[in-house]
Amino acid sequence: VFLENIETFITQLNSINHINLFLTELKEEDTSCTMYPRPEGGPSQTPSVSGQKKVDVVCDALRKAMESMNPNKFCLSILTAYVKKTVPELEVALQKVHELRENPPAAAGAVSAEEALKYLLFLVNVNDLYEHSLGTYDFDLVLMVAEKSQKDPKEYLPFLNMLKNLEPNYQRYTIDKHLKRYRKALVHLSKTGEEHFTEVLQLVKEQKLFSEALKLYTTDSPQYKRLSSAYAEHLVEQQQAEQAGLLLWRCGLPARALQAFTSCSSWRNAICVAQQIPLPTDQLALLARDLAERLTEQRRYSEAALLLDQYAKDCEEAILALITGAVWEEALRLIYMHNRQDITETNLKPALLEAVNSQTGFLEAQVATFTRHRSRLAVVREQKEKARLDMLDEEGPDCPDAELYSEASSVMTASKYSQSNSRISSRSSKNRRKAERKKLSLKEGSPMEDRALMHALSEIISTVDKMREEIHSLLKSLVLFQFDKQAEKLQLVYEEALQTMEGAVPEVWPEALLNSNTPVTGPNSTANSIMASFQQQQQQKPAASQLDPEIPTAPKMKNGVKWKLTILK
Amino acid sequence: VFLENIETFITQLNSINHINLFLTELKEEDTSCTMYPRPEGGPSQTPSVSGQKKVDVVCDALRKAMESMNPNKFCLSILTAYVKKTVPELEVALQKVHELRENPPAAAGAVSAEEALKYLLFLVNVNDLYEHSLGTYDFDLVLMVAEKSQKDPKEYLPFLNMLKNLEPNYQRYTIDKHLKRYRKALVHLSKTGEEHFTEVLQLVKEQKLFSEALKLYTTDSPQYKRLSSAYAEHLVEQQQAEQAGLLLWRCGLPARALQAFTSCSSWRNAICVAQQIPLPTDQLALLARDLAERLTEQRRYSEAALLLDQYAKDCEEAILALITGAVWEEALRLIYMHNRQDITETNLKPALLEAVNSQTGFLEAQVATFTRHRSRLAVVREQKEKARLDMLDEEGPDCPDAELYSEASSVMTASKYSQSNSRISSRSSKNRRKAERKKLSLKEGSPMEDRALMHALSEIISTVDKMREEIHSLLKSLVLFQFDKQAEKLQLVYEEALQTMEGAVPEVWPEALLNSNTPVTGPNSTANSIMASFQQQQQQKPAASQLDPEIPTAPKMKNGVKWKLTILK
Repeated sequence: VFLENIETFITQLNSINHINLFLTELKEEDTSCTMYPRPEGGPSQTPSVSGQKKVDVVCDALRKAMESMNPNKFCLSILTAYVKKTVPELEVALQKVHELRENPPAAAGAVSAEEALKYLLFLVNVNDLYEHSLGTYDFDLVLMVAEKSQKDPKEYLPFLNMLKNLEPNYQRYTIDKHLKRYRKALVHLSKTGEEHFTEVLQLVKEQKLFSEALKLYTTDSPQYKRLSSAYAEHLVEQQQAEQAGLLLWRCGLPARALQAFTSCSSWRNAICVAQQIPLPTDQLALLARDLAERLTEQRRYSEAALLLDQYAKDCEEAILALITGAVWEEALRLIYMHNRQDITETNLKPALLEAVNSQTGFLEAQVATFTRHRSRLAVVREQKEKARLDMLDEEGPDCPDAELYSEASSVMTASKYSQSNSRISSRSSKNRRKAERKKLSLKEGSPMEDRALMHALSEIISTVDKMREEIHSLLKSLVLFQFDKQAEKLQLVYEEALQTMEGAVPEVWPEALLNSNTPVTGPNSTANSIMASFQQQQQQKPAASQLDPEIPTAPKMKNGVKWKLTILK
Repeated sequence: VFLENIETFITQLNSINHINLFLTELKEEDTSCTMYPRPEGGPSQTPSVSGQKKVDVVCDALRKAMESMNPNKFCLSILTAYVKKTVPELEVALQKVHELRENPPAAAGAVSAEEALKYLLFLVNVNDLYEHSLGTYDFDLVLMVAEKSQKDPKEYLPFLNMLKNLEPNYQRYTIDKHLKRYRKALVHLSKTGEEHFTEVLQLVKEQKLFSEALKLYTTDSPQYKRLSSAYAEHLVEQQQAEQAGLLLWRCGLPARALQAFTSCSSWRNAICVAQQIPLPTDQLALLARDLAERLTEQRRYSEAALLLDQYAKDCEEAILALITGAVWEEALRLIYMHNRQDITETNLKPALLEAVNSQTGFLEAQVATFTRHRSRLAVVREQKEKARLDMLDEEGPDCPDAELYSEASSVMTASKYSQSNSRISSRSSKNRRKAERKKLSLKEGSPMEDRALMHALSEIISTVDKMREEIHSLLKSLVLFQFDKQAEKLQLVYEEALQTMEGAVPEVWPEALLNSNTPVTGPNSTANSIMASFQQQQQQKPAASQLDPEIPTAPKMKNGVKWKLTILK
């Protein structure tokens, strides 16, 4: 309503001073919320549609109205409206003053440039105004402000004279830099031509304006290349070697691109760029071996094998890498491709037997740990429940201590803990979670032992559940080489492990028995009986555990992944 | 305690009849649970440690005690203990009778074979006993039982005489088959030698005893090969062509293995077996093309490309497959490997531009749908909440109708629905969930519109969130070819999409405000005020939505996957 009646508002105020006072007192605050809050639960506030700030909206609206009504009369209020915006538009205000001096208005009672400047100096710090006048690159304006200020002409005149003698773009660059407006400075400097490119490079490096700088040059210019090179150097320092490589490659610096790609194991790019150089065959082979070694360290065996096979031309090493990585089918493919069936006997079969043994043993150990944790969890929970019931018996349902022994208690403890530790609150929530998990100890009797056990159980389930594809592939290879007995054993052990874990989920992560809710109200119910009943229901519900990210949730098992072989029984 | 005092029990009973009565009345039921249930919440029952059934444990214990005390005296009770096991041990009981006839006990009052058999016939159906006597392969025993039965000798004698003339293993096979003991029949038949192998094969096929049969022959025997072949045929029918292929390959039938592997796109195995045959180069190329086509249909472009490149020796097709599959880096690798940079200009770059356009458009459409659903959800929820409050105002907190408008209402409606629809309850819970999801309609005003919207929102988030790697790889390729503007646009659109969705999660899946719980009890609280307060808390909590698997839960976003390029701004 206010915005629709701005002119009426101005007319009714009918006072420059009052308008100025109104503008200067504007605050970025919605008094309909802060001063007059609505009752909670009432209809919600209609949020302001535009993303603009209130102060800016009001300033602009008033200014536009005054400009159309009588720019001379409202001159000072218009200046106020510029200055009071959340980011003051001092340059525009100064420009207005400058116009007043160039073309003094004829109208009677019009404000003079002198008066306007004086008023501005009253609103704004003189140094700010001087700096902003510089930012207009208008030396008349600068001089006008400088004269009104208390500044010593011996100070500013030499500087202004020096600026005046500069080439226009370099002049603007110097001013921008003086005002720390580095992006503008870069644009102006870039227009000054090649002789100043060293300065460009320095500015870009100092202010990290690489992306901005690249946009100011054509991609085939030598400047673009030098900027890309500098940017790449910076990116490598920032652990972004792959992106550095891309920049170097596309601007025609393949040797350095190769280095960057190699350092971050971006092997496809490395090989491509090496072939573009082109690297001699023997050096390409060495590069491939180097990359393969890096990939092997990262357990990326399939990729390592590709490099060894296709670029180092060493099929034997490639096959061995695949066998080490348990990539059985691909190993066999290379064996047949290179007619190296001897490796089947010397390496593949022994590795398969070793794998089936180690997998079987691993699974048995996981199941043993799982069973131990599960039993212990039942004991811990029973103890907690017993302690809680004892408390309730003694002190009634309102007793706050009883809560301490409820299922939800660990949650509360945890929240408290994380608050009191806000000093070490780390940058990311991930770190925080990590830190909190450390608090979980599996030691018997530790305060959050139940949650530690749930977490450990969840981890085991995930680990074992993730093995489906791996086990499936191993089983197939075992069958192919007639190791049916070993395969049968593994299939049995894995199936039992999965069943044990799936069967334990409802016990470890009990679901709220929504249907078992007995009625809690009735003619005989009391406030206390209702409370107790609700409390109990809340205990049964793992609501809190589902909500608090710190309580491990039931892992979802990938039962859709078919891993079993029907030919094994 | 009972098991530890068996002998005392027998001595105190001191009556064959009473012992027999005790044994015949045993039931597989834990009367300490069924007849005398403990109060709920009391200490839990100690479960029986062994996995054995109670009836079997008691029968065996009594029998062993009686056998050691006086086998002659307790003869009939011992027989009862054999017969009354959950799987009656009729053969052993019959054997005991047979022994009595062969070596009549000298002791006075000992039971005669005649009497024992009569007793057995009283306990067990005569035909069952006859069949089981056959199962001992002991013709004396068979005759003994047959004579005591009402059977016509003209019926059983010719059969027994026929059997007597057979070779021992074939005789046992015939009896086993007659008794439908197919596994035993197979074992005996397999010992009869090659001339009966056709019968073996028939039995195996009829009874699907493939795995069992394979174990009875050495892997290098012709029988093993014929069995594998039959098994493979069966497996192919069961949609298990890959396992069929493995069986065929390992038993030396590579041509048929190739067929099986090809049919299920098990391309590595297919290629290996083809090279083992060995297929001539041109046919291998054809095979590779065939497999590549199947893989392309399954959107497995990388694998298709490998086949085209390495076996069909058609690098151009391989590169095009990779470009179609948006496997940009690998496409470029093959381009450089085969020195086909021309394809970069003709295909790769245009495909990149097309991809960036379609991805940008796709993301914008997803965001638009997301925003529409989100706004609609807010409206639906407000309407439900309003309706609920109106109900509460009118009829007080106990009003059951108010529940119908609560957040949890859809859950209840859904549960009811799934129960009343139990006729169509499908085999798997997956199907059930699918069926229930169909009930969710996005149509405005549909009863579960809120849940349908949540589901749709969840799906969009997953779809968009899954694109991280894809977008990252596309951005890198775009940058490499200087398509910075397009890359910047895509990066911006994707980032905004992710932010929109991440920002909406707390609104769409509100968390319980655990800390905002205002105290509900106090001197002024009444049963009704507490109830109302709890009800309200429950509304705020998405507990139900977290528990009911049918209510879509908040999707977990993969914020750990870094996809953004720092060089794009």
